[in-house]
Amino acid sequence: MGMPGFINVRQGINYTYLNAGNRSLVQYLRDEIGLPVYIDNDSSLIALAEQRFGIAKAQQNVMVINLGWGIGLGMIVNNEIFRGHNGFAGELSHIPLSDDDALCACGKRGCLETVASMQVVAEKAIEGINGGRATSVKDTDSVASKALLDDILDAAGKGDQFAIELLSDAAYKIGKALAILIHIMNPQAIVLSGRGARSGKILLAPIQQALHKYCIPRLAESTQLLISDLGFDAELIGAAVLMMENFEKEVKSLPTLAV
Amino acid sequence: MGMPGFINVRQGINYTYLNAGNRSLVQYLRDEIGLPVYIDNDSSLIALAEQRFGIAKAQQNVMVINLGWGIGLGMIVNNEIFRGHNGFAGELSHIPLSDDDALCACGKRGCLETVASMQVVAEKAIEGINGGRATSVKDTDSVASKALLDDILDAAGKGDQFAIELLSDAAYKIGKALAILIHIMNPQAIVLSGRGARSGKILLAPIQQALHKYCIPRLAESTQLLISDLGFDAELIGAAVLMMENFEKEVKSLPTLAV
Repeated sequence: MGMPGFINVRQGINYTYLNAGNRSLVQYLRDEIGLPVYIDNDSSLIALAEQRFGIAKAQQNVMVINLGWGIGLGMIVNNEIFRGHNGFAGELSHIPLSDDDALCACGKRGCLETVASMQVVAEKAIEGINGGRATSVKDTDSVASKALLDDILDAAGKGDQFAIELLSDAAYKIGKALAILIHIMNPQAIVLSGRGARSGKILLAPIQQALHKYCIPRLAESTQLLISDLGFDAELIGAAVLMMENFEKEVKSLPTLAV
Repeated sequence: MGMPGFINVRQGINYTYLNAGNRSLVQYLRDEIGLPVYIDNDSSLIALAEQRFGIAKAQQNVMVINLGWGIGLGMIVNNEIFRGHNGFAGELSHIPLSDDDALCACGKRGCLETVASMQVVAEKAIEGINGGRATSVKDTDSVASKALLDDILDAAGKGDQFAIELLSDAAYKIGKALAILIHIMNPQAIVLSGRGARSGKILLAPIQQALHKYCIPRLAESTQLLISDLGFDAELIGAAVLMMENFEKEVKSLPTLAV
């Protein structure tokens, strides 16, 4: 099971979403459906998929960006998912990076996701359409609508200038965050994955532009910028890997049976 | 040997300082003095010292900040020095964080060290003194003077308001960078070390203030903020650890002698 939020992998708890009462979320589901259940952060699963089956296959140090409603980060360090001390590493969405101090859903101001997430792209699309911008993107009542984002990504792919402008603005700001990530982690590759990666080619130029501006050249040159080809399946594949790895451990830890 | 700059530990090269011609810097010194020589980045050595003999002893995931002319970062990940893909990880000094776009020695604009390094503190001290600020800090011709920085740190310790103001301003900006580091790495501890750590108690409050402003509370609470007690010896101790670890490897790799 992949979910956004602060997740305790060992205890099977998501601190952010779905409180299952006295039992952990994982225990609750195990009890209800009678099958083994494992949980991990959605961006960690996507990173796992990219590193086992995707474009970053077998690379040792890879940062995978999950472009969706937030800006997730799955970190592969020394060939394994890196979780930090409490399992909360990779909170890229909430680094303080914006100058305009917009209020974030987390309660802080100026977080990266307030200016660069796909949700912000959708909000600005509605704003623009209501303001009379010429675009092939269809209006919708709901910012959270999946159809709206798909519509924007499709329109950008077909050359809609408004859609391209919205995605480019977000991408440039993501690029500034990636410059920071490169300075700190010096990764072999950064993979653009998740929902927004479908527009990877459009995002690439402004991201690269930001890296040229904000990265020391020796560092920028050391990191490949890649676009996922797993697409929307990345998280599902990552969840399958999670299951396989844990299942293997469970089977190995069973007592040897006497024949 | 500990040095600032981009260092290739395996090849014994410092890409930034001291070109030794056809030989690597390490090979050059080995040839000249006839003794084993090893090289590492100064901030990595300080991190090694803190994690083996200092306040972060035996902690698995620790970020060590080297407060000096730049703002170095030595990273301990899973109990070992983390170097990234090419050995350049931890370039905290040059993350784009400043709004005022000051030109940095690296050629970029807005790098953290342009607003928060001890060099900037020294520059601002001279500016203030020339502008008539009341302070016990003695003027000096040279910003790069070690005596000047020591004088500022001493004055702050004795309650000099101008010195405290200079250090607090720098520390608040360092705190914003540490908020980013905490979001990405979720470390067990951050250690303030290096030359400036002598004023650790004065730096702590504004750093903590920035963490309160810029960190998600669950993340800020997960990381201890510590002040080094190794002081100026940290780098020397780290260099000794480097020697011991490599020497052990060299001895172990010698062919077993027939008795």
